[in-house]
Amino acid sequence: MRGQNHNERFLLKKISRSAGPGKRSPRFPSLSLGIGDDAALFRPKAGYETILTCDWFLEGTHFLRDKHPPDSVGWKCLARAVSDVAAMGGSPRYFLMSLALPDVLTGRWLSLFLGGSRRASRKFGCVLVGGDTTQRDDVLINVTAVGEVAPGQAVRRSGAKSGDLIYVSGRLGEAEMGLQALRRSEGSRRTANAYLRKHLYPKPRLELGQWLAKKGLATAMMDLSDGLSSDLPRLCAASGVGGEVEAAKLPVPQVSNADRKRGIEPLHLALHGGDDYELLFTAMPSKSRLLPRIFRGVTLTPIGTMTEKPELLLLEKNGRQCRLVPGGWDPFRTAH
Amino acid sequence: MRGQNHNERFLLKKISRSAGPGKRSPRFPSLSLGIGDDAALFRPKAGYETILTCDWFLEGTHFLRDKHPPDSVGWKCLARAVSDVAAMGGSPRYFLMSLALPDVLTGRWLSLFLGGSRRASRKFGCVLVGGDTTQRDDVLINVTAVGEVAPGQAVRRSGAKSGDLIYVSGRLGEAEMGLQALRRSEGSRRTANAYLRKHLYPKPRLELGQWLAKKGLATAMMDLSDGLSSDLPRLCAASGVGGEVEAAKLPVPQVSNADRKRGIEPLHLALHGGDDYELLFTAMPSKSRLLPRIFRGVTLTPIGTMTEKPELLLLEKNGRQCRLVPGGWDPFRTAH
Repeated sequence: MRGQNHNERFLLKKISRSAGPGKRSPRFPSLSLGIGDDAALFRPKAGYETILTCDWFLEGTHFLRDKHPPDSVGWKCLARAVSDVAAMGGSPRYFLMSLALPDVLTGRWLSLFLGGSRRASRKFGCVLVGGDTTQRDDVLINVTAVGEVAPGQAVRRSGAKSGDLIYVSGRLGEAEMGLQALRRSEGSRRTANAYLRKHLYPKPRLELGQWLAKKGLATAMMDLSDGLSSDLPRLCAASGVGGEVEAAKLPVPQVSNADRKRGIEPLHLALHGGDDYELLFTAMPSKSRLLPRIFRGVTLTPIGTMTEKPELLLLEKNGRQCRLVPGGWDPFRTAH
Repeated sequence: MRGQNHNERFLLKKISRSAGPGKRSPRFPSLSLGIGDDAALFRPKAGYETILTCDWFLEGTHFLRDKHPPDSVGWKCLARAVSDVAAMGGSPRYFLMSLALPDVLTGRWLSLFLGGSRRASRKFGCVLVGGDTTQRDDVLINVTAVGEVAPGQAVRRSGAKSGDLIYVSGRLGEAEMGLQALRRSEGSRRTANAYLRKHLYPKPRLELGQWLAKKGLATAMMDLSDGLSSDLPRLCAASGVGGEVEAAKLPVPQVSNADRKRGIEPLHLALHGGDDYELLFTAMPSKSRLLPRIFRGVTLTPIGTMTEKPELLLLEKNGRQCRLVPGGWDPFRTAH
């Protein structure tokens, strides 16, 4: 990690102090060199494959400076990248954080941000080993996560076959409900609200992803970041198949009467809401009995079937069929 | 690499097509999975250490949209990250590119940008395996480079001892001269100008770094990205020593009379000019006879000595001593 001047050196020190083990540490014997050199240096686990992914987390696009608490920004930028590692069935190990920040945020905001990032780092077992810093009017974040997976165990998007069952973990659309609560909030943020918590502090499904990979139960897998209606077509396209989703089976969020009056519709949320970071995976019908209804507190719900014909259908409760069209979060469609 | 909608899918396709081997390729047998899944997947070279680094490349901070040709932006964002791998003595292997772009630049600008990035990728032997894309008013780029190095061979910043000789590769300040030429240019860019070429298309000193690492000749090493007066203090601080630089020995750029009249001063350029991506390294005096004056076309120049006392001195030509103060490129000091 390198920075350009006194302020950046101060920034780097603040980040390094928050980072945990920078040099060789008994907890991370494979890490030779952390923050402070031209690059990080580590010894990958012998025989394992390395997983590599990165994600933007940009003010105005992925979070709102006046709405999202800084520690949520710190948590979520890492959770987003780690979720990609979970979706391969891997274990996160290291991350790099590139941070561009206005000078006015290098005090309290940065401390809280780093607190959130540190909590996430400990929770996910993923150590900060480097990055890059610079000054900028907007807060710009890019996180690179490195994980590992036993050879041959990684689950891709491309392995689904016609006839496979489609599963999702958890409930879909809860994070979107949390976002709507956050947008309505004025200053006071009731993190007692479970939906808001799921939006602010998502938990990548690491244990589930690793278990599915190890047991060879998932034929294809990805994480749900942009919403089912946007992400399922990607899995279908990668696998060269289509899919049918049954509306009645979707694990929709519980919506109060007040929310319904606001026009909040559970099915719409479950289909199009983003930022859930749940897992979407497919399994052969013959393996479905090996999948529990609840895995370590997380529900697993079969929501449909992969089909030969490469199109995506939604079977509605009234028996009607309609095409499922991407309606998830879409930065290019709406101005932010 | 994932994107959010139709435009982004188009972007991804354009980037993927430009990226070279995305799936398992005979040229890259260790790459299991490239662009298009949740993450990239590769098998690290058995027994080797992995080098990991990332760098911002931001419009207005690191390049100017109206001055820098798009293919230079594509080349340089990768060169910057690969230079950190060179500075560890490693070989680059893979890179991730995160790209945020205004919609109006997804045509010709993006094609030229990807052309520059592809040329750099081939030149450096570093394959694009993933990233993230989104829309944004400014062009934002973050590149993560992954390299490898034989165990124990990586050269850190922290190994210099008092008495070690200080070396630099190439000439210092040439890229800064190129930047000044670019700033003066109005539309027409004479890339026949070698300084301008060095600014626009820097070549990380990969062969030199690898040779020094393999032969165990460098006690400490880093790349010169922000200028000698900013970077040497970092190497000194990491090693816990000071340094004396002899002005008369610095490989300064050749400056025309016209440039001198403009106030361009060779010594100032060599001390404070950024973006050279040359190597700064230290070596024991007993090893200095093993260092050629020219290594594969690149001059190696001893410019001073590491000292016990942790301060940085410049010995001027008139025999005077003064403290060397960082005066390199500094995004926090000057507004952009």
